[in-house]
Amino acid sequence: MADPVLPAEFALIARHFRPLAGPGALDLQDDAAIVMPPAGRDLVLTVDAMVAEVHFLADDPPDLVARKLLRVNLSDLAAKGAVPLGYLMTISTPLSTSDEWFAGFAAGLAHDQAAFGITLLGGDTTSTPGPVSLSLTAIGHVAPGAAVRRNGAAPGDGVWVTGTIGDGALGLAVAQGRLADPSGELLGRYRLPQPRLGLAIAGVASAGMDVSDGLVQDLGHLCRAGRLGAEIDAARVPLSAPARAAGPDWLATCLTGGDDYELLLAVPPGCEGTLRAAAAAAGVPVTRIGAFHAGEPRVTVRGPDGAPMALGAGGWSHF
Amino acid sequence: MADPVLPAEFALIARHFRPLAGPGALDLQDDAAIVMPPAGRDLVLTVDAMVAEVHFLADDPPDLVARKLLRVNLSDLAAKGAVPLGYLMTISTPLSTSDEWFAGFAAGLAHDQAAFGITLLGGDTTSTPGPVSLSLTAIGHVAPGAAVRRNGAAPGDGVWVTGTIGDGALGLAVAQGRLADPSGELLGRYRLPQPRLGLAIAGVASAGMDVSDGLVQDLGHLCRAGRLGAEIDAARVPLSAPARAAGPDWLATCLTGGDDYELLLAVPPGCEGTLRAAAAAAGVPVTRIGAFHAGEPRVTVRGPDGAPMALGAGGWSHF
Repeated sequence: MADPVLPAEFALIARHFRPLAGPGALDLQDDAAIVMPPAGRDLVLTVDAMVAEVHFLADDPPDLVARKLLRVNLSDLAAKGAVPLGYLMTISTPLSTSDEWFAGFAAGLAHDQAAFGITLLGGDTTSTPGPVSLSLTAIGHVAPGAAVRRNGAAPGDGVWVTGTIGDGALGLAVAQGRLADPSGELLGRYRLPQPRLGLAIAGVASAGMDVSDGLVQDLGHLCRAGRLGAEIDAARVPLSAPARAAGPDWLATCLTGGDDYELLLAVPPGCEGTLRAAAAAAGVPVTRIGAFHAGEPRVTVRGPDGAPMALGAGGWSHF
Repeated sequence: MADPVLPAEFALIARHFRPLAGPGALDLQDDAAIVMPPAGRDLVLTVDAMVAEVHFLADDPPDLVARKLLRVNLSDLAAKGAVPLGYLMTISTPLSTSDEWFAGFAAGLAHDQAAFGITLLGGDTTSTPGPVSLSLTAIGHVAPGAAVRRNGAAPGDGVWVTGTIGDGALGLAVAQGRLADPSGELLGRYRLPQPRLGLAIAGVASAGMDVSDGLVQDLGHLCRAGRLGAEIDAARVPLSAPARAAGPDWLATCLTGGDDYELLLAVPPGCEGTLRAAAAAAGVPVTRIGAFHAGEPRVTVRGPDGAPMALGAGGWSHF
């Protein structure tokens, strides 16, 4: 660039975001990205917004904010069984935002781009008189017709989850000073979800989604989409060591709290072996916690005593 | 949906945005959209953010805000010569936002979806303690390798623009009470850009972009990307009747102001006839206002008296 007096916006992009740009992004110097999609594959597209004071705390480390923004979208791709390709992003920040904040934000993206094998395809930076406001669109691809959807579960399919459930919600309680977290594991899970990419669920799960609004509410989504009921056994829901240490008073929080970003899957009995093999290959723990059944789209949670638990409406709405 | 007590977020999406969803959007009830891209075409991807109090006024009619958000992105697709396919969107709004605002916003999108033949593929709605904050990702497609880029102009190529230049910047002056607008045409241009889709520039223009930051600054972008200079003749820059009526004191504003969303094209002499034919077919006026030449990446504007005009840095940065 021969012009030494570039406006601040372009300098900001050049300094922090151009190094993140991949093939097709045209060095972020064009109006759009140009991408040749993998031949014969379906595209999977997802978008999420994150706003300071709503989805993260204004003084959260910017690298972790960036990685969470990227990862919640990658988690949606993982839930479809998709392979991530790249992402576009908009960042609206107060004029007082420091160059260090942008540097940290970009460093977080660079770290996770390398970890997940994706690149930045395009973006827009603007100022805002309000809090930092972020939006990220992720693009992936999947074999034609093979994307896992929310509908498709059949009576008799097992209810499966990856990893452990409830750590995200407990981590929020830690961040709010309501729970101790000696190991830092719960806060880490809240701040930095682990998208379950690489688990080969396409053609194995009959339905699925990621657990972002809480296990019980999200299982309700699968039930409504598939027009069937589900029953899970609270004692079989996998909890992390710190979640178990928090004690039974926090069980309902684990079952209904958000921000886990584990996968919630419906798996036909005949596919359980395939799922276990895929899980072993990917190094992702999977656990069967219940089953779908014909009937009203309703979730029943059997408590440790065998009786249905009363969990209220459950789940997390951003309004 | 059998559950009568959906959280407010889901009800909002169902009421206002589900009617906008197209094939692949899975009724906005899934975590991602699944789209089969047109076989053998390149994808074109672009994203823009708009924030109340920065890019629009908080009391602007919500249908016009929505249509402008969509159209600035469609304008980027138009600048690539792409055919639009669909879009994803995030909307962060204060909790006090009325249902009427959302209804108006969705009505604006519905109007323009029909006008431009596209559908909503996915989105996310959140609350914000700040002003309304919007982000839209548009997806289009183009023949492989045929997308028009910012680089590619050669010495001797003509500098061409579509439509008239400066109305967007004058419309902003009208909105700010600094200029009269008896016909309402200038304010209309500022509030509602006309993306120049349908003008067949792929394979005709050697380079191009849309004029969003101001004619002189954006022409500078083409010069820097192509490593060459350009000279334009202010007297040949097409002005609308209200812009001419505003008088010569506003000429510099027209040449450097943003928000025109016309196309700025480099066209080799041998392609001028093809461009004129494409313009006639699309009903889009095109005007040759100057030419590119070898040399430093610099824009010279000859004023009405034939002498170079001093326009300062020119152009619009969102920072």
